[in-house]
Parts: sequence; C-alpha cells; structure tokens
Amino acid sequence: MDNAADRQVFYISDGTAITAEVLGHAVMSQFPVAINSITLPFVENESRANAVKEQINALYLKSGVRPLVFYSIVIPEIRDIILQSEGFCQDIVQALVAPLQQELKLEPTPIAHRTHGLNPGNLIKYDARIAAIDYTLAHDDGISMRNLDQAQVILLGVSRCGKTPTSLYLAMQFGIRAANYPFIADDMDNIQLPAVLKPLQHKLFGLTINPERLAAIREERRENSRYASMRQCRLEVAEVEALFRKNQIRYLNSTNYSVEEMATKILDIMGLNRRMY
Amino acid sequence: MDNAADRQVFYISDGTAITAEVLGHAVMSQFPVAINSITLPFVENESRANAVKEQINALYLKSGVRPLVFYSIVIPEIRDIILQSEGFCQDIVQALVAPLQQELKLEPTPIAHRTHGLNPGNLIKYDARIAAIDYTLAHDDGISMRNLDQAQVILLGVSRCGKTPTSLYLAMQFGIRAANYPFIADDMDNIQLPAVLKPLQHKLFGLTINPERLAAIREERRENSRYASMRQCRLEVAEVEALFRKNQIRYLNSTNYSVEEMATKILDIMGLNRRMY
Repeated sequence: MDNAADRQVFYISDGTAITAEVLGHAVMSQFPVAINSITLPFVENESRANAVKEQINALYLKSGVRPLVFYSIVIPEIRDIILQSEGFCQDIVQALVAPLQQELKLEPTPIAHRTHGLNPGNLIKYDARIAAIDYTLAHDDGISMRNLDQAQVILLGVSRCGKTPTSLYLAMQFGIRAANYPFIADDMDNIQLPAVLKPLQHKLFGLTINPERLAAIREERRENSRYASMRQCRLEVAEVEALFRKNQIRYLNSTNYSVEEMATKILDIMGLNRRMY
Repeated sequence: MDNAADRQVFYISDGTAITAEVLGHAVMSQFPVAINSITLPFVENESRANAVKEQINALYLKSGVRPLVFYSIVIPEIRDIILQSEGFCQDIVQALVAPLQQELKLEPTPIAHRTHGLNPGNLIKYDARIAAIDYTLAHDDGISMRNLDQAQVILLGVSRCGKTPTSLYLAMQFGIRAANYPFIADDMDNIQLPAVLKPLQHKLFGLTINPERLAAIREERRENSRYASMRQCRLEVAEVEALFRKNQIRYLNSTNYSVEEMATKILDIMGLNRRMY
C-alpha cells in the first residue's frame, strides 16, 4: 500500500479516531482509487496538531497531490491548524450537523463527545459492559456451565466455527453476556443437547460453517490431523445441523460473515437490544 | 429513554449498521435533545424496507414529530423505500461522497461496501485477526508464557486494572497479538519483572489505575475482602508503578479511559500500525 500513485488519506481525531477511520474508509470505498492511509488519534493540543499539519504538507510536497483528510476535532484552535494544511479536509460529523440543525431548529453545542470515551454519565453502563466481557470469558468454550441462566445468548457449534470471536464481539461491542458451548469430535456418535441447556432453549443459537472452510481453518491449527480432515468436518457439521433442527434451535452459517455481521444478525434474530458504547 | 418527548432516531443499514449507529450518535450528541434510538441492520430486501418504513411512519403518526433517520443503503430500490417514509433521512456516507467526487474528479461507484463484512479480498487479513484473538486469549492473564516473542505488545498490571478487556480490544479491533501478565497480591513484598519478560522490554506496556477505582471494581467481585481493601489496592498500585519506573516501562493510568481509548493510546505510543477491519 506504499505505491507512490496511491492517494494519501488521513483519519484524524481528538479522540480514538475509530469513527473517522471507519466512515472515511466507507467513503473512499465508493471510489475506484487505491489509498494509503494514516490514522492519527488524540490530536488534542497545538503542538501535535502542528506536527500533523507538517506531515500532511510534507506528503503534498513529495507527491504533488493533495492528501485527503477526514477529521473530527472539537476545539476550534486545534481544528484550524489542520484546516490550514494543504490537505483536502472533510469534517466527518459537521457534514451531518448542518442539515440536522435546520430540522431540529436547535443550535449545535460542540462538545468533546468522546464517542468511545468514559464519563460519569456512562460509567455504570461501561462497568456492565466489562462485566459482560468477564462473564463471556468465564463461559467460553463450555469452561463453566454454572450460571448459564444469566447468559443472554448461548452459542452452540463445532470446534472452530466462530463461537469464541462472535461471543467476545457480542460482549465487547454490545455488552451482551454470551456463553458458548462446543460439540466435540468424540461425542459425534451420540450427539446430544446437554440436559442443563434444555430449559434454556430460548437462549440457544447455533453456528454452522461449510465443511471446506472448517477444514481449512482446522488445518492451520493441526496440520494433517483427523480433526482437520474433510471427512471429519463433514460428519461434525452434518451431525450438529441435525441436532439444531431436531431441537428447533435457530442457527446461521458463519462461512461468509465476519464476527461483526454474525453478532448483529444474532441480536437481530433473537430480538436482543443493542447498547451503544 | 422511552419518554414521549424524546426525539426518535433510527440507525438503518443494509449491513451491520455499526457505522450508522456510531456516527449518528456522534452527530446527535452535538444537540441538546434527548433521544430514543432504534437500530435496524440488514435492511436488504424490499419487504424488510417496507416494514421499516411502516415503523417510521407509525412513530410519526403517534408523536407528530418526524423521526430522524441516519442510513446507509446501497441498492437504490431499497433506499428509495426508506426515503419515501415520513422520517428526516440523512445518508451518512453520501454526505461526504459529493465533495470528494469534485476533488477526485472521479465518479463514485456505489458498491455494497460491507465495512464490517467479509470478502475474498480481506479474508487473509480477517483470518490474521481471528488468529490474533486466539493468541490473545491463550496469553491472557499470564496463562501461557510460551511464544511471548510473537506478541506485539505485552500488558502488565495488577488484577482488575483493565488488562484483559484492553488486550481483547486490541486483538478484536486492530488484529494485534496482545498478551497480558498480572502482578498478583502475594508477590507484592518482592515484586519483580519475570526473567522471561526482560528481553521483551520494548514490547512491555504497563497499566495502572487509581486505588479508589480499583477498590470499587474489586469490591464488586469480592465484597469486604482484603483483596478489595483500600490499603491493599494502594499498596499494589504503588509497588507496580515503582516497578514500571525502575524498569523504564511506559505506562498509562486507565482510570478515566475506555478500552477503546486505552487500546488506541497504546498503539499510538508504541508506534504500532492500526489495521482496518
């Protein structure tokens, strides 16, 4: 991505720059142009802002093409330094604030919003989120089958079908207490839903995966093993899918979805509330 | 948040709606207005889009106030259904595409960009991210001290100062292999940096926390314990901070920062590349 012909893009913020990065990336993906991106978080004082301005200008001098700058900075003095650079600067939040201002007939009050920040107003919610991460870790991979009634969702599936990353994303992004339980290869002859899970049927959610993708993932972990063989992967997936259907457990195939997509689909299907963090 | 006077806000997308939610929330935080928000992901066919339109219109009829709609939908036919609703609709991506179009002198090619999605082009990067999550889990809380040279960062600190959530966020959001090692109460009389960590000094990063906040967090876990006492928390924090200074380990106080902020600050200070997912 260091090709000289690539367009240089900066994502700049006085906070984590996660929003600038995600949105700027979505905007750039609409154009047929290769980019080389630099993310600069915590640009919150004049000396850092001046250093950023120099960095933008230096790249402009070198390439002769204006770098694109997606930014979100609340303090006007800091923002102005970036705006004095040679970059083509776009305020990611203000572009939407102006039309809203008309509709709401309210003046915006620019505050350091710290989308991903911590403040007295969200501390209780934040602590609940950390508790969800703790819960999820303690109930990963069937480690503990205690307190499963406190789970908001219990993911089921074969080894390496995506249960752990999906559970962790549910906890991290949405504050959901997500347990997960694996069906292991040795049980495949007589696969059953554990008795402790039966009364929790409404919380169960199955993950499945294409055997080919499963075998490739397992191969990375244990090369040339029975565990990673196509025969074994096909068998396990077929058995577990049959169990899902028999027990009327809703399930999704994770093969073509990221953890973000799996997590949001599960919340959507189960009617669980998304919390904002 | 169900007050009738609250302004109704929708975050709608044909994908996860994570971007719409985060950006819309940042925009709304600029206005002195209480909101009641509903997030609707995967609005990707006409029947769902029509159901969403009905939901928006029903809330308008009930309240007499136009709901605000932040959306990102690529397929024109689906988008048009939402635009026919009574909501005040703002396309979160297009607001920035138009000015970019002028600057780039390129036509945008609206594709289902799936910011948080999986496609053949990012599968290798995605698998590396899942591997980072695996690595981080296997090296959480000092569980394994093997292969620490493969870590990109090793977080150090007392129990409950935020090591685990920060490590997991680094892995989940940025694909960073983040190990963490706890200093436990029993070692406090003679606290030392483990020999295995000494050659990895450049990868070490310390977390500290205010003793008051630490005691409150621990109290939730073990009420009225020595572990949660102010005396113990003060002692542990002082000892560990002294160790950080003695060994010239960079460190940050996590008390007022979210995991997102801690993770991005650590990447920034250590000069580690952020990857986009």
